Amino acid sequence: MTPPGFVDIERAAERIAGHAHHTPVLTSTWFNRLIGAELFFKCENFQKVGAFKFRGACNAIAALPEAKGRSGIITHSSGNHGQAVALAARLNGYRAVVVMPDNSARVKIEAVREYGGEVVFCAPGNQTRHAAVEELIEKHGYEFIPPYNHPDIIAGQGTAAEELLEEVPDLDVIMAPVGGGGLLSGTAIAARHLSPGIRVIGAEPRNADDAARSFRSGRLEPASPEYTVADGLRATLGPLNLAVIRKEVDDIVTAPEEAIIREMRAVWERMKIVIEPSSAVPLAALTEHDLEISGRRIGIILTGGNVDLDALPW
Amino acid sequence: MTPPGFVDIERAAERIAGHAHHTPVLTSTWFNRLIGAELFFKCENFQKVGAFKFRGACNAIAALPEAKGRSGIITHSSGNHGQAVALAARLNGYRAVVVMPDNSARVKIEAVREYGGEVVFCAPGNQTRHAAVEELIEKHGYEFIPPYNHPDIIAGQGTAAEELLEEVPDLDVIMAPVGGGGLLSGTAIAARHLSPGIRVIGAEPRNADDAARSFRSGRLEPASPEYTVADGLRATLGPLNLAVIRKEVDDIVTAPEEAIIREMRAVWERMKIVIEPSSAVPLAALTEHDLEISGRRIGIILTGGNVDLDALPW
Repeated sequence: MTPPGFVDIERAAERIAGHAHHTPVLTSTWFNRLIGAELFFKCENFQKVGAFKFRGACNAIAALPEAKGRSGIITHSSGNHGQAVALAARLNGYRAVVVMPDNSARVKIEAVREYGGEVVFCAPGNQTRHAAVEELIEKHGYEFIPPYNHPDIIAGQGTAAEELLEEVPDLDVIMAPVGGGGLLSGTAIAARHLSPGIRVIGAEPRNADDAARSFRSGRLEPASPEYTVADGLRATLGPLNLAVIRKEVDDIVTAPEEAIIREMRAVWERMKIVIEPSSAVPLAALTEHDLEISGRRIGIILTGGNVDLDALPW
Repeated sequence: MTPPGFVDIERAAERIAGHAHHTPVLTSTWFNRLIGAELFFKCENFQKVGAFKFRGACNAIAALPEAKGRSGIITHSSGNHGQAVALAARLNGYRAVVVMPDNSARVKIEAVREYGGEVVFCAPGNQTRHAAVEELIEKHGYEFIPPYNHPDIIAGQGTAAEELLEEVPDLDVIMAPVGGGGLLSGTAIAARHLSPGIRVIGAEPRNADDAARSFRSGRLEPASPEYTVADGLRATLGPLNLAVIRKEVDDIVTAPEEAIIREMRAVWERMKIVIEPSSAVPLAALTEHDLEISGRRIGIILTGGNVDLDALPW
């Protein structure tokens, strides 16, 4: 696989135009004062299925030759990607199977079904997941849509940064959270093309810092064993994503759990929008590190808003 | 006092233009399907101080002759109006005193102080509040800014509906919650002028239905003794507000507590925005009553987003 270029992001933007929302960019005087910079929040919590993941899934599925789509789509996910694939498949007229760990939250299982996806359960664990997917592909000839390690997924996720930079062209810095790396690699490709001098910074929970370590060492480092509240960022970096990130990203910074929860809550209180913990990681990193961004214009991608309102982390 | 006309709402819009936010109008496919109509949500949760109250307070304070403003502003409030007056006074260069019951939530007291207001405590209860305000006015010559029963307050609140109807001119129905009646009376004056055939409907918690009763009887009915989660709507209707509402409003409908909480939570989950219980009352009423709005275009004013994230009602 070769990484996508900006032209692939432009093509992705065309493909998803009828399906995905062009999400708004919000600002907040309160956060500007807190951080000492001018912040522009790209609100992917308002995206279809409540997360940027819809962009990549929709692009990857729309890019399939029809014969492949007709054979049925499969993916594995315990979170937003499963919902994104289910809805994107339905909108393209295909059926979707989502392999989910049998300990997934009931609300996530129901969300996949609500979007028309068929749920197949497997025992928790990365290996069992992949085995279950492979078995079903072998049996039924399904087409696999991976969560992040694929050029079409990366190109789709890059459309968020493309839209942000079209609306706010003169950003000095752009930040995105990093888990598997689909969003950060797409963001970097879009930003580097549209604004060559921009600084691209990834943000990661300190408790799940494999991307930061991989970014520095140049090879895929193993996952951290610790728990993070930012459930969307527990995935480990993909090889294609690492290649893009090493080339196009300036830095990856980390944030501790308490800062993530604090800034998540502050966004709810001050901006009156619902974001999931992953969305707060760049803000949390800004409060923890001196990134010399005083007075600069900083774009931040808020990744999503899917949270369990019965189990808030504060 | 005579009720304001549309010209006063236009003047209010000019006065608050530099200070208040022009808030966005959001839509939701999910709620459209639920209600069977096309809904347009005017997001006053994104307004300064997190509530529409800023519009009225800002207009009333900006309308004061400078000599009166210089003598200092006073109001009483246990909620959003106090914050609104504090900030609006500061933006106009005046000092503000807010009389608050000494059992007010700490977060509300601190919010008033954060906006530069001076807090004076009184014993809880309507009479003690008013007595405390009168005593301070007598002593210091402060100018009183009431929460809803005043033409300038009504005109200021009416600017929300004016903006909504400018953005979505062809509404069939417009709905606003009603507590003291400042928002509903301003909404009715704006809507009736901009769209004479529109239906104007107020929505009230069933447990605090004095406005609905007063609307039918034509005189100010006493407050209900019951508790409502919609704390912003516990006030009883003002006489000036009643006069406007009797003339310009088509109906006032009520909603039970469980529907208010359910729809509040649904807005958080589906629209990813933080609203306070009062904001959910029109939606809750729509799910409880057959208002013959199938397929119609309905504007709903979401009043605010100030909630205690440590004490959510579900």
